[in-house]
Formats: sequence, C-alpha cells, structure tokens
Amino acid sequence: MSDTHSLDTLVQALRRLPGVGVRSAQRMAFHLLQHDREGAQLLARSLQDAVSQVRHCALCHTFTEGEVCATCQDPRRDASKLAVVETPADQAALERTGAFKGRYFVLMGKLSPLDGVGPRDIGMHKLIERASDGTVQEVILATNFTAEGETTAHVIAQALKNRGLTVTRLARGVPAGSELEYVDLGTIAHALVDRR
Amino acid sequence: MSDTHSLDTLVQALRRLPGVGVRSAQRMAFHLLQHDREGAQLLARSLQDAVSQVRHCALCHTFTEGEVCATCQDPRRDASKLAVVETPADQAALERTGAFKGRYFVLMGKLSPLDGVGPRDIGMHKLIERASDGTVQEVILATNFTAEGETTAHVIAQALKNRGLTVTRLARGVPAGSELEYVDLGTIAHALVDRR
Ligand SMILES: [Zn+2]
Ligand SMILES: [Zn+2]
Repeated sequence: MSDTHSLDTLVQALRRLPGVGVRSAQRMAFHLLQHDREGAQLLARSLQDAVSQVRHCALCHTFTEGEVCATCQDPRRDASKLAVVETPADQAALERTGAFKGRYFVLMGKLSPLDGVGPRDIGMHKLIERASDGTVQEVILATNFTAEGETTAHVIAQALKNRGLTVTRLARGVPAGSELEYVDLGTIAHALVDRR
Repeated sequence: MSDTHSLDTLVQALRRLPGVGVRSAQRMAFHLLQHDREGAQLLARSLQDAVSQVRHCALCHTFTEGEVCATCQDPRRDASKLAVVETPADQAALERTGAFKGRYFVLMGKLSPLDGVGPRDIGMHKLIERASDGTVQEVILATNFTAEGETTAHVIAQALKNRGLTVTRLARGVPAGSELEYVDLGTIAHALVDRR
C-alpha cells in the first residue's frame, strides 16, 4: 500500500538487525507504533547518540566514548597480562568471574575467511604492537572454543610466538558441576590432554 | 563501565522491542556499531518518520499516513462486506488469498482481559458504528483461531447480532494439503462440525 511508505521503510530498517526476519520486523513495527511510540522515539535517539558517541579504545579496541576505555585507564589492572577476547560481551563474561585482573585486547570479531574477515579486520597488527610494548609478559588467548575461535587463537598464537612472546590459552575441560557420564567425549578428551 | 553510557542506553532501548532479551539487544547493538552504522542511522530516521507520519485510518483503524487508508478509499471494494481482523498483518494475509474483495475493520489487537485489553481498546464502539452504516450487509469475523481470537470473535458477534446485523466466521477445518492422519483431533472435530 502506497500510503504506508514510512511503515514499510521502518520494517525494512528493522530487518537489518541480526536475527530479525520479515515477520519479526513487522511485529516490532506494529508493537512500537500501536503500543510504544515513546519507546520508538527513545530507540531513535539512542541509536543516534550511540553512533555519534561510541568509538574504539585506542589501546584495546573495545567500545568506549573516550579516547581510552575505563579498563585500560585503570592503574590497578596488571599491565603484564593481556587477555585477548572476541567481543565486549566475552570481556564482560571474564570480568564477572573476578579471576582476571590484567588488561584486554578486544578483537571485535574473529577470523572467518569464508566471510572475508581477515587478520586486518580483527586488528592483528595493533594487537602485535600492543603485546610487544615491553610491559606485557603473557598474552592469554580467551577467544571462544568454536571452530572460528580456535582458528583465531591459533593464528594469533603463531604470530606472537614468532616474536618471542609468551602465549597461553584458556584451559578446555569439564564444566564445573558436571557429571562425567553426561559430558560429551570431545570435552573429556580435551580435559585429559589439558590435565593439570 | 561509565564510559559506555550511550551504548548501555541503546541496549536498554533495544530491549523494548518485542521478543528481544538482553543478549539479543547486546548482539544487535554490537552489530550496528561494529558493522552497520549506516543501518543504525537509517533505523533511527525510519523510527522518527514512522512515529510522526503513521496514524490510524478514520474508517478501518489500520495504519495509514492519510486520513483514510488506500483500501478504504478504493471504490472497487465491495462495501457490503466487512472483514474484522486483529492486525494489519492478518489483513495482508487475507489480501494475499485474493478471495476477499470487501472492506476491513482492523481491531489493532484482541480482547485480553488478563492484559487489561477491553472492548474500548479494540475500537468496539467504532466497529459497531461502522457496521451499522446501512451499507454493510455482512460482517465476517476473521480474528485468529486462538483462545483470545475466538473470545474476541464471540464478543463482537454478540454485540453485532444484538443490533440485527448478519455476522459470519471464517470456517475452521483441515488445512489444504493435509493428510487426516497427521491432523490434530480438535481440527478434525471442527471440520466435521463446520462441514459444508
Ligand atoms: Zn581499552
Ligand atoms: Zn481504512
């Protein structure tokens, strides 16, 4: 219908969100226009603010509104340890454990040759520079334990080891609270290989 | 982190979309800021345009940018038949069949006492007025075949029949292309009751 141009445009724009198909986009547009116009306006403003304010930390690449993010600025963090994670969400997961007090480098992605994501796209050059600053003693690879995460860890490990840096990887193993009987074989095999 | 205020605000705003939890909202925000800032700006503009342009058709209540929607303005539509649907998406589904050439009334919702949605919220008063215009000869209830859709149809049917109007309901039955063996019992029972 030609008299719903702005509605059609909104549905198309919502479809650019990851995981949102045409049905979901229509449901979202309907909900916002019928029940939550205030939410629609809030979302519009938030999008514009975020696009204009959010940039990448000059040191670790994560999202920040300043030149350098709060974590990188924190003098209490151990500058000799650098954890490499894929995304800010992964960094947040590590932070929640309270078990890591070092610094981070956030790849903002993972190597994925099939999708055309190469070393430059994950800031490999910057990571090497960062890890070679003379203060970093150990780089802990905390990419995900997926095929792409493992490949990413492998490629980074090679590049850093070639420069004489100490590189470690999070241990694979049996999740806390699991009974061996119900854990998949691959996980048990990894736990055996990585036994302490 | 205090230096990601606009990012946090964006995640909260995205959570107001139906079906979007905190994980999805974070993934959406990450995607937009890392990979599709143009999409974020397009979405912001689309939201503002839709909020300022889209209103309800004076005759059928659906979304439109004019005073009266294109369907209601179309002189080729049969004004003696009025289909009552829950949403514009349901109206679009009926239109795709090409089997209905009458007019519509879009409830923009359904009766849901538990959620505080009463007759006034679905425009019952306006529907009665619309159906009593002297031109409408038959009101076809095309609400969904869910508990709430059936209740809505029942309540509307009572109100219109009390005013001497002819009210029909879409037939329940076996979906086209189904084998009886695999159709649930309730559907077969309804198909028996509604047999032609
Ligand atoms: Zn940083
Ligand atoms: Zn209309």
